Amino acid sequence: MEEIRFIDLKECILSDNNDLAEEIRAGLKKSKTFLMNIMSSPGAGKTTFILDMIRRLKSDIRMAVIEGDIESRVDAEKIQAEGIPVVQLRTGGDCHLDAAMIKEALSCLDMEKLDLIIIENIGNLVCPAEFDLGANLQSMILSIPEGDDKVIKYPLMFSVCAALVVSKIDTKPYFDFDAEHLRANARRLNPSLEIFEVSAKTGQGMEQWCGWLENCIADFIK
Amino acid sequence: MEEIRFIDLKECILSDNNDLAEEIRAGLKKSKTFLMNIMSSPGAGKTTFILDMIRRLKSDIRMAVIEGDIESRVDAEKIQAEGIPVVQLRTGGDCHLDAAMIKEALSCLDMEKLDLIIIENIGNLVCPAEFDLGANLQSMILSIPEGDDKVIKYPLMFSVCAALVVSKIDTKPYFDFDAEHLRANARRLNPSLEIFEVSAKTGQGMEQWCGWLENCIADFIK
Repeated sequence: MEEIRFIDLKECILSDNNDLAEEIRAGLKKSKTFLMNIMSSPGAGKTTFILDMIRRLKSDIRMAVIEGDIESRVDAEKIQAEGIPVVQLRTGGDCHLDAAMIKEALSCLDMEKLDLIIIENIGNLVCPAEFDLGANLQSMILSIPEGDDKVIKYPLMFSVCAALVVSKIDTKPYFDFDAEHLRANARRLNPSLEIFEVSAKTGQGMEQWCGWLENCIADFIK
Repeated sequence: MEEIRFIDLKECILSDNNDLAEEIRAGLKKSKTFLMNIMSSPGAGKTTFILDMIRRLKSDIRMAVIEGDIESRVDAEKIQAEGIPVVQLRTGGDCHLDAAMIKEALSCLDMEKLDLIIIENIGNLVCPAEFDLGANLQSMILSIPEGDDKVIKYPLMFSVCAALVVSKIDTKPYFDFDAEHLRANARRLNPSLEIFEVSAKTGQGMEQWCGWLENCIADFIK
């Protein structure tokens, strides 16, 4: 009797995804375009953060945005109003973006004319962390109102990111948020994690963040 | 030549899940135990909300909690400290609970001695909405800091719930949150949705919520 063969579908999916992600990264290297993936919970402030970055950087850096959304196009329209190219990826129910979607989105952009492409992922602290999109920088936003205990609850997200942006820092007086507790837990899991505190509303910390990102891009292009 | 047969794996998974959910609901009817599923983004305040409910209701109602968590057991320990039975479901990476997990959890509880079981789902506004857990009440929490635009971005979640709890209402002065906009959008999608505004921190709205829930349970037991 023949042996039963087991196929791990998730492993297959992730392996195919990783191959595509490597292909994307090779293309980015060639065109000298820096691709940044931003992940967070729903409502952590990804769009507001991206809009503030665009306003600060667009005169120096040629940018575009890939907007992931399950259903709506409201975020893409806000980006479009800033006058930079935007590709909307409507997943129609899927809870994360994958490398195939990003490949499709990149084919709509003129890579040779772009220094930076920002991906706004689906609002979700779980599934997006599993999918390599070919990005040169994995980053996440955690907002003050979400609480300082998220590292132990969503460890994969904190592990795969190189940068953590703590957002809505202007609301800190109204929440019990122990920033030291967050830092200690995050660095225990991911010692090289860069941590920033910002408020896209008041502008606090945004200059420091943008300076760091510009250095990352300069290093990549070199 | 034989035809190619397509198997929609997701459809299979959801169909198996729905069968199990019906089985769970039949068991609950028999033991007269009301099962409530609470879903939300990470950090919307599910645990704080549940703890406040427990304190208000435990002298009248025999309760237990099923705690969904990807990795940690901090929430389960907080519930345990209130002296009520708690089952911890550690999904080890999975982004939602399913009916099989709930069946397993229920087998650890003495259903005949319980009026209410609360499920704290994984913090995620996307995937948990797809899985019927056999609950008698589907509910969700949306916190003020997440913003009033979530209905159009996560429509399935708002569609499958019978109750929406708007939490952290005490922080409203610090955020641009248009409650009317939220209500209008939510009711357009789901006209029978019951909407509550609460602050588990100050207690505002909690009595009204608990009263409504007690009525639901009384109707169910009748």
